[in-house]
Amino acid sequence: MANKYVYSFEEGTKDMKNLLGGKGANLGEMTNIGLSVPAGFTLTTETCTEFFEKDEKLWSELLDEIYLNMEELERKTGKKFSDSANPLLVSVRSGAVTSMPGMMDTILNLGLNDISVKGLAKLTSNEKFAYDSYRRFIQMFSDVAMNIPKVRFDMLLNSIKQEKGTELDKDLQAEDLKRLVQGYKKIYLDEMGEEFPQDPKEQLKLSIEAVFASWNNPRAIVYRKLNDIPDELGTAVNIQSMVFGNMGKTSGTGVAFTRNPSNGENQLYGEYLIDAQGEDVVAGIRTPEEISHLKDQMPQVYEEFLKSTELLEKHYKDMQDIEFTIENGKLYFLQTRNGKRTAQAGINIAVDLVEEGLLTREEGIMSINPNDLNQLLHPAFDKKDLENAKRIAKGLSASPGASTGRIYFNSEDLLSAKGRGEKCILVRQETSPEDIEGMISAEGILTSRGGMTSHAAVVARGMGKCCIAGCTEIRVDEAEKIIIAEGKTYKEGDVISLDGETGIVYSGEIKKAQPELGEKFQKFMTWVDEIKELGIRTNADTPKELLQAVEFGAEGVGLCRTEHMFFNLERLPAVRKMILAKDFVERQEALKELLSVQREDFHELFKAVGDKPITIRLLDPPLHEFLPHSDEDRINTSTLMKIDLKELESRIESLSEVNPMLGHRGCRLAVTYPEIYRMQARAIVEAALDVKAEAENLNAPEIMIPLVSHIKELEYVKGQVVEEIEAVFRERNERIKYIIGTMIEVPRAALTADEIAREAEFFSFGTNDLTQMGFGFSRDDSGKFLSEYMDKKILDYDPFQRIDQKGIGKLMEIAVDLGKETRPDIQLGICGEHGGEPTSVEFCHKLGLHYVSCSPYRVPIARLAAAQAVIVN
Amino acid sequence: MANKYVYSFEEGTKDMKNLLGGKGANLGEMTNIGLSVPAGFTLTTETCTEFFEKDEKLWSELLDEIYLNMEELERKTGKKFSDSANPLLVSVRSGAVTSMPGMMDTILNLGLNDISVKGLAKLTSNEKFAYDSYRRFIQMFSDVAMNIPKVRFDMLLNSIKQEKGTELDKDLQAEDLKRLVQGYKKIYLDEMGEEFPQDPKEQLKLSIEAVFASWNNPRAIVYRKLNDIPDELGTAVNIQSMVFGNMGKTSGTGVAFTRNPSNGENQLYGEYLIDAQGEDVVAGIRTPEEISHLKDQMPQVYEEFLKSTELLEKHYKDMQDIEFTIENGKLYFLQTRNGKRTAQAGINIAVDLVEEGLLTREEGIMSINPNDLNQLLHPAFDKKDLENAKRIAKGLSASPGASTGRIYFNSEDLLSAKGRGEKCILVRQETSPEDIEGMISAEGILTSRGGMTSHAAVVARGMGKCCIAGCTEIRVDEAEKIIIAEGKTYKEGDVISLDGETGIVYSGEIKKAQPELGEKFQKFMTWVDEIKELGIRTNADTPKELLQAVEFGAEGVGLCRTEHMFFNLERLPAVRKMILAKDFVERQEALKELLSVQREDFHELFKAVGDKPITIRLLDPPLHEFLPHSDEDRINTSTLMKIDLKELESRIESLSEVNPMLGHRGCRLAVTYPEIYRMQARAIVEAALDVKAEAENLNAPEIMIPLVSHIKELEYVKGQVVEEIEAVFRERNERIKYIIGTMIEVPRAALTADEIAREAEFFSFGTNDLTQMGFGFSRDDSGKFLSEYMDKKILDYDPFQRIDQKGIGKLMEIAVDLGKETRPDIQLGICGEHGGEPTSVEFCHKLGLHYVSCSPYRVPIARLAAAQAVIVN
Repeated sequence: MANKYVYSFEEGTKDMKNLLGGKGANLGEMTNIGLSVPAGFTLTTETCTEFFEKDEKLWSELLDEIYLNMEELERKTGKKFSDSANPLLVSVRSGAVTSMPGMMDTILNLGLNDISVKGLAKLTSNEKFAYDSYRRFIQMFSDVAMNIPKVRFDMLLNSIKQEKGTELDKDLQAEDLKRLVQGYKKIYLDEMGEEFPQDPKEQLKLSIEAVFASWNNPRAIVYRKLNDIPDELGTAVNIQSMVFGNMGKTSGTGVAFTRNPSNGENQLYGEYLIDAQGEDVVAGIRTPEEISHLKDQMPQVYEEFLKSTELLEKHYKDMQDIEFTIENGKLYFLQTRNGKRTAQAGINIAVDLVEEGLLTREEGIMSINPNDLNQLLHPAFDKKDLENAKRIAKGLSASPGASTGRIYFNSEDLLSAKGRGEKCILVRQETSPEDIEGMISAEGILTSRGGMTSHAAVVARGMGKCCIAGCTEIRVDEAEKIIIAEGKTYKEGDVISLDGETGIVYSGEIKKAQPELGEKFQKFMTWVDEIKELGIRTNADTPKELLQAVEFGAEGVGLCRTEHMFFNLERLPAVRKMILAKDFVERQEALKELLSVQREDFHELFKAVGDKPITIRLLDPPLHEFLPHSDEDRINTSTLMKIDLKELESRIESLSEVNPMLGHRGCRLAVTYPEIYRMQARAIVEAALDVKAEAENLNAPEIMIPLVSHIKELEYVKGQVVEEIEAVFRERNERIKYIIGTMIEVPRAALTADEIAREAEFFSFGTNDLTQMGFGFSRDDSGKFLSEYMDKKILDYDPFQRIDQKGIGKLMEIAVDLGKETRPDIQLGICGEHGGEPTSVEFCHKLGLHYVSCSPYRVPIARLAAAQAVIVN
Repeated sequence: MANKYVYSFEEGTKDMKNLLGGKGANLGEMTNIGLSVPAGFTLTTETCTEFFEKDEKLWSELLDEIYLNMEELERKTGKKFSDSANPLLVSVRSGAVTSMPGMMDTILNLGLNDISVKGLAKLTSNEKFAYDSYRRFIQMFSDVAMNIPKVRFDMLLNSIKQEKGTELDKDLQAEDLKRLVQGYKKIYLDEMGEEFPQDPKEQLKLSIEAVFASWNNPRAIVYRKLNDIPDELGTAVNIQSMVFGNMGKTSGTGVAFTRNPSNGENQLYGEYLIDAQGEDVVAGIRTPEEISHLKDQMPQVYEEFLKSTELLEKHYKDMQDIEFTIENGKLYFLQTRNGKRTAQAGINIAVDLVEEGLLTREEGIMSINPNDLNQLLHPAFDKKDLENAKRIAKGLSASPGASTGRIYFNSEDLLSAKGRGEKCILVRQETSPEDIEGMISAEGILTSRGGMTSHAAVVARGMGKCCIAGCTEIRVDEAEKIIIAEGKTYKEGDVISLDGETGIVYSGEIKKAQPELGEKFQKFMTWVDEIKELGIRTNADTPKELLQAVEFGAEGVGLCRTEHMFFNLERLPAVRKMILAKDFVERQEALKELLSVQREDFHELFKAVGDKPITIRLLDPPLHEFLPHSDEDRINTSTLMKIDLKELESRIESLSEVNPMLGHRGCRLAVTYPEIYRMQARAIVEAALDVKAEAENLNAPEIMIPLVSHIKELEYVKGQVVEEIEAVFRERNERIKYIIGTMIEVPRAALTADEIAREAEFFSFGTNDLTQMGFGFSRDDSGKFLSEYMDKKILDYDPFQRIDQKGIGKLMEIAVDLGKETRPDIQLGICGEHGGEPTSVEFCHKLGLHYVSCSPYRVPIARLAAAQAVIVN
């Protein structure tokens, strides 16, 4: 055979997607595994290509093959085209290699004509249905195949409805519909100069031509361009016999899941209607019955159904979402696909499928989207309640969870409201370290500015607290203590709800559900850990965060930010004293005070972390972040510190910066004030010695110097730190092991990592800053335009959420290669916010990093992503 | 001979620096070209190494060689050690391979003892001189060779001075000095337990050991560490016979330049004193005579002097700075080196030397330091006046020149003072675009903040106006209109002077000299242009700047910043209207207004630039820069624009950014508001069509899209620009050529330059921003800590002044390589501030860029640097 244009479903398999299109291959597959699928055949994509070469007309050789298959179809179904007793009707559908939903044309009920419409009426005992189907077919065919303006049909329909005094199509009776069919046929004759084709062969030929041609309709072309689908691929066309569930008491239609999609229980789950079409189930006029009732109503069908679902799960190795129709006691499967499910169900089903032997552990692990675990770790709003809630605005889903509370606009107000027993939401334009206490006490956090890595977002994720950031649709007036959204004003004390999963802010309270982590989840994560190669650490600044993370499976701390210890309200005065010191002596005094509290901090942390590794980053933010921002706070500080207010303001002014992100911070502070890092180094080592003396196991502390851009910066600062540490060792006459490394977060450091590695025993990628500097995007400001970037498809995703592998990833690659050149065993990790994002975790795995570090609540996600990275690479 | 430790000067040449040290090799060279140099010999650096291996003692084999050379020295000079009639005295000096000025020890007048001091007294007819020399020798020897505390000698000297009632050494008489010698010798005996050595051989042995040993004195070790000089090199030691110019009427001493160092005239220039020592010339008690008088006083010596200077210039191929002594009618050259000169003299001498055939053009070109041209292009303060001026503070020499004027603290005050005929200096904490009018009218600009690439610095350089930026030693209170420096206050209207060359601020007026560019300068620059390969363009925003630059040799415009056109006071209202527009329609109206003025701007620019290339950068700064900053300006704007003040403030607030450097600017603006770039593109093309219609030659305008970080940004924005341009072509039914390219100023753009080059027809490196983002240094804030970085030798130079080749240069290299991969003929240039800095220009040459672009006044510097880059590479 020179050219085979047509494949019956029996001839297709899922591997023939390129030739038969996605839908065609799937119908073939279903047929071949023995499911009862309405019979049909597929015209190949190659046919489509040839069709366009032949001026968009079907040719005789092809038509012969089609008609042969039509005859075969009549044979298989026992129905006949144009038959007044048992008419064969078919659908004509496009089916490209890559799904292009809704982009191309479809024709249903082909085969209806003046004769077969009577057959259909008889079979369904429903004249109204039959004529409605016929009039729809005429309209669809006229539109799609003949390009007759739809408006002509609509006008006629409307005039009849008007005449009958009704507004809905469904109120028309059989007689009206018959009249409509007459009218439609007249329009056709009018427009085309010939009668509406009664010959199903003719109908089919014209319909196939129309569906092929729709490959090149404008919306399909645009869609392909947007999605990088080549124009020359072409589409396949599927011709499938139609089945009807409305042929009486032994017919019906329904949908089912092979397992329970909300909890994963291994039990058939679904519903059906007797003597009904698919639309009837959706319309919700009649109440469907539970699938289990089918057992009584049609035991044979139910039997077959059960067998088929088993077959399906074995074959597709996943829970299936099925559409089926029963026509005169015969069961047909119209569609099957992997069913959507809740995260909890997902885990449970995966574990069951593995234990049932249907999936390997690897397949089970691959079946879960790591991000879905968020649902498992955080409370969520009740879905029903959510549907009725009043939406105020949408921002960035900065930290998952769900929370309801009264709004307060600063820490002080919030703390006293909480003291009164209220549940509170902290609302700010953006948060700063001064707001920490309020954030701790709040149920959730809402900011009108800032992106996914803004202060609010990072801190909230660390706390596992719901946060919506960068909600530019609202205006926050902190002075007036109001939110303005779409002209409406929300005052202090008003109740709102935040959905951290979607970023939507609602007014009023919404019911919540708290998730539970079951046994199966634990089992699943054990499998995950056995497979993954990356270490998973956490970003944690307090023992509480650390212990939460360990519970979630963290294997150590990849980032302990010491500045968060400084922001504690009790310590802030000493910190400010240090910053505002007029000279070295005053600064030393303040540092002495800080030394003892920092030593305590580290002591607690070391005891909590035990023998797991911990990386401590020395002070990073610019000093002005610690100084009072509000007038009130300035006055208080001036009194407390006995500094003239004007003098204080002038010091604050002189420390202020145009671009603090690129300013005097990180190791640059230590170049100017080495004594700050020396104090921190001393606190770390003294605490470590104390903990060791208490006979606790302790890993060598990893001291991390941030924001290095040049080897000589690191040399200088490391020199200071080592000198202080050695002094402690001499004083105590005792040593411990420690290692010193650096963040790679400045592009220049990545580009000169071979030099940097001479001094650094480890690298930890700070991909937040690397993204900020690599793109030149301020994380605090880019929220304003990044959404536009995504709308306009300039960026496919927010690079602060996912590592931009082409640009920022290239910097990381360069740094890894150069670093290893100098120090082949250099320890490599990442502690940027990306450390808990699945595609970024996979990238880190491929880069050969040793660990990723992320906020506690993302640890399980990172673990799963790390395991998946091993499996797919 | 197994080991040769000692070389007579006759055996040395300048190529033997490694063996004989710099000074030894130089003395050898001078001797060998036939100059009369006081005889002597050199102990090699290898001797030094062996000396340290032998426990810092001279060994017999070496001593034998030294004494042999001493005898030879006596023979050559006709003098004898320890002689009462004609004693030989020598100096013992260190001389390392790399000069370490002042770091090691020297002993003079060695050979003096109780006998030879009498011979010296007789020969010079000056007992006082002889005994003074003797007592100095004893003290120096005791200190250097014997480590006897200097304080003992000083105490004795003081007691004798007290006794004589005098404060100055020179008031002591011969008898006093004889007593001092006795006393010094007693101290020596006291300390050492033996007499002061009378044997010159013994003196020499101990002195050589001391000078060798001084290689390892602490200050020498520190100096070597700081300057990366290896410790194992060692030093040579030079023993040279001393000559005396104070031996009567046929003796004398002086200094001379072979040409005039202040204007370059080819005429001997210098002065001398008869019967005097070198100190006498420096002391200035007697007035030296002009060198030409020597012709009459000692015609033969003068003859020899002339011949020798000719010899010297031929040999060293440069103007020489000579120290000489005449001893009893015999001329000796003590030192010769290339003479320091003014920039103007430098050029004139170089041109003369080339025309005299002494230098090739290349050598002539290499003899000028490009940065010295600044002196030629800008006025400078009178040197004498400068010495007496009162220094207020020192800042960054942001833009060269010299200016004096009354201080004003804002544009308005300054403009009205200027209206009264005053010369004014604008003083600000930092300037912003709002200050432009004041900057234009000021003589000079002083800011207390901001670095070498701050707004003030960049704009001032563009204007060729003197500017001192980042002067952190002063505090500027703009509200009170005062400067506070070291406790002193300077009020509005006070006169100060700015030296842009040194960054020093003076109080009061200082006289100025205006430079002239002579014929020789023009000739020199012609040679430069013949050799250089890089094109030199200029950064110019106005026809005035452009014409100035062309006069300085600019070959086109590499950067025309369109925002500077927006800051014009007359246009600001329209710009603000555009920014504050509530919707697309309002914005369109404002843009229409701007279109017509922008069209005019470009029209003028195109006419000025003629057939030279011009690169126009579309709007770059964040919009909030254009909005009113001061309360007063806000109120005015609110009235003018009929916007509620509160509404205005809320708009300004909503546009404000945490890190504007990394904010909503550059092409990001055009992603949000494509209509702004479309307006600019239309203005450019309409103006070009108009100019073409006037039958002017015009190059294809180069349209530059700034701040691109991602290929899709460029695709989108370029798409908008091209669409608008094509619309203009259709409307006018006429086309012109144009090209579209981008800045490479964001690290990610450099890293993905292969992609970017698909859309960009040219790259222009924006190394300011590339440095900011590559290092993570805000140019506005880093001034505060960068000086500490340089003090601590963490950075060798300010990376905003010179390209950091290892890091930022690497990004450029990556971008060049990737860009050429995609588009081999891509046009490559640089328009950052580095484009006029010589080492950066050389780097750009090596990178293979096609041109550099810099501010007008740096164009000649860039030309010269470009020529030098060709010669040395």
